[in-house]
Amino acid sequence: MAMKTLDDLFVHTLRDIYYAEKQILKVLPKMAKKAGSDALRDGFEKHQAETEGQIERLEQVFEMRDQKPRGVTCDAINGIIEEAKEIMSEADDPAVLDAGMIAAAQAVEHYEITRYGTLVSWAKQIGMDDAAKLLQQTLDEEKKTDQLLTDLAEKALNKQAA
Amino acid sequence: MAMKTLDDLFVHTLRDIYYAEKQILKVLPKMAKKAGSDALRDGFEKHQAETEGQIERLEQVFEMRDQKPRGVTCDAINGIIEEAKEIMSEADDPAVLDAGMIAAAQAVEHYEITRYGTLVSWAKQIGMDDAAKLLQQTLDEEKKTDQLLTDLAEKALNKQAA
Repeated sequence: MAMKTLDDLFVHTLRDIYYAEKQILKVLPKMAKKAGSDALRDGFEKHQAETEGQIERLEQVFEMRDQKPRGVTCDAINGIIEEAKEIMSEADDPAVLDAGMIAAAQAVEHYEITRYGTLVSWAKQIGMDDAAKLLQQTLDEEKKTDQLLTDLAEKALNKQAA
Repeated sequence: MAMKTLDDLFVHTLRDIYYAEKQILKVLPKMAKKAGSDALRDGFEKHQAETEGQIERLEQVFEMRDQKPRGVTCDAINGIIEEAKEIMSEADDPAVLDAGMIAAAQAVEHYEITRYGTLVSWAKQIGMDDAAKLLQQTLDEEKKTDQLLTDLAEKALNKQAA
């Protein structure tokens, strides 16, 4: 993929996060199933529905550009998900498992926060203000999810795990 | 590596971020050399010195545990750095190059922010309060660096690149 202009970088990052969201959508049901606490399971299930909406928004942005939605392999998200799977297969104690899954989910959220932050900024620069608004909605959702995970980690799960 | 207890998860994440910081230290001089704007070059050079201090803090945490500092391959950071290198080899326009390198650097910062956030929380839970304090210092630095990069991106570079 070309990376010569800001428009190239925008499309590359759009494809990167499209791929990432699809991978996350696959792993969230597995994480929900493994969750030891009801609050965390609810959180993962809610975020699954939210992720479906975020993927639709990305498809709208591709449409605005008359481009077919297409992903590009994102090694960063694959690495984070691979580690989450390792924790899920190794940790037996539900509280440790939850602590590890929360950490993995927060790594995912932070990856998304940085990429959507960049996309919003670049969308404005290349004159795609409607796309910037859509992407900002997702960015706000990801920040809320990250905060929810911090609250869950701080309030209950880590204390049980120690 | 075992991932059965919260202590296991803490050590795994400590090794993951130790590896990540060392990789970042290798790429920062290359990014500084490529930077089109003086402000960005200064930012990368300053962060290089800061990263050296952050690595020393991690080594102190290993020492507190009577463990030899040792990294574990972090695919997430490798993926982010690989992408930064692609941008650095493809983009010719200095403003586009800077915009791409800022985005890559922010992805690095967000990865570090989430991992140090988790480590601070877990250090407290496993009774390593002195380690939590050291790791919190690094977390604060990473957040400041991310903010600096946002300011640089918003104020000057993206506008030139568009």
